[in-house]
Amino acid sequence: MTTAKRDTYTPETLLSVAVQVFNERGYDGTSMEHLSKAAGISKSSIYHHVTGKEELLRRAVSRALDGLFAVLEEPGAVRGRAVERVEYVTRRTVEVLVGELPYVTLLLRVRGNTRTERWALERRREFDHQVADLLKAAAADGDLRADVDIRLATRLLFGMVNSLVEWYRPHPGTGPEQLADAVVHMAFDGLRTAR
Amino acid sequence: MTTAKRDTYTPETLLSVAVQVFNERGYDGTSMEHLSKAAGISKSSIYHHVTGKEELLRRAVSRALDGLFAVLEEPGAVRGRAVERVEYVTRRTVEVLVGELPYVTLLLRVRGNTRTERWALERRREFDHQVADLLKAAAADGDLRADVDIRLATRLLFGMVNSLVEWYRPHPGTGPEQLADAVVHMAFDGLRTAR
Repeated sequence: MTTAKRDTYTPETLLSVAVQVFNERGYDGTSMEHLSKAAGISKSSIYHHVTGKEELLRRAVSRALDGLFAVLEEPGAVRGRAVERVEYVTRRTVEVLVGELPYVTLLLRVRGNTRTERWALERRREFDHQVADLLKAAAADGDLRADVDIRLATRLLFGMVNSLVEWYRPHPGTGPEQLADAVVHMAFDGLRTAR
Repeated sequence: MTTAKRDTYTPETLLSVAVQVFNERGYDGTSMEHLSKAAGISKSSIYHHVTGKEELLRRAVSRALDGLFAVLEEPGAVRGRAVERVEYVTRRTVEVLVGELPYVTLLLRVRGNTRTERWALERRREFDHQVADLLKAAAADGDLRADVDIRLATRLLFGMVNSLVEWYRPHPGTGPEQLADAVVHMAFDGLRTAR
């Protein structure tokens, strides 16, 4: 009975193993067999917790999405000038991304083959739209340079932020706060001293 | 004789088909059979042009790398203040990326399982180092904000630029020049009007 050795498995520990395997093998390339081996529990034990791998995917990307959407409800995101709010959201998005790195990594790799994946893509787009709306409001306030193309700026901002999942690894001197500072300063103030 | 119908195949057309298949299926997931089907020529006809799929990979990523390294030799990259040079290189990198989109996309997806892939990764790192050196020189000239962390700035700059392969599709009003302008302005001047 290999299933007995880890009867302390919780949905939470199973989820963290599943996310790791999804990120390594891709969601499409992951079978229940792979999950069972990685978790060290039988497939039937996994089915005790979830209906299948799609439920694990949904839980995992929900964790990332909930973290991101919660940012939009924080006081810094809803009060003050739009430009301050969008800087705040950018900073906090970086922090959520670093705090939930494997979950956000999975979310960003979702491609849309299943219902859950399409739902996740739709939610990501909704988040991007809300940030784009903040940028539009900041432009209307005259707080963005007149030549900024909002659509492009939103893409580039997320391009920069989302790239973190590919290269960021925590190390002394570059914690989430320093990283968030670097992103916000580069995106909003630029690297260059004033011309 | 299905092989006879396209005896006008050149190494160049074969390469463009191979890059498309590599980008769709991943290099590891592509067999000579897949390449043969996509190109509509027999495997032996492919072997007439190249020794195998790794040679096609090498040619494809070479095309991307040659384009990128050529930028570093252009007058705008070697003359003038470092900050102007790094802005120039950023702008031209975006243009090469858009001009050689499938080839650069493949280069950026290379993971390092074969000798050719490791070589490509090494060349990419060399390119990144040269840009980081330009940023360092610009900082030494006092042309970058004092709080800029060069290592992080280099990563974020390439994060933003490289994200283009995931979302950029040419459309009216956003050609390579507009895109390059948007990237350079955001990275060096920031989105925000002066505080």
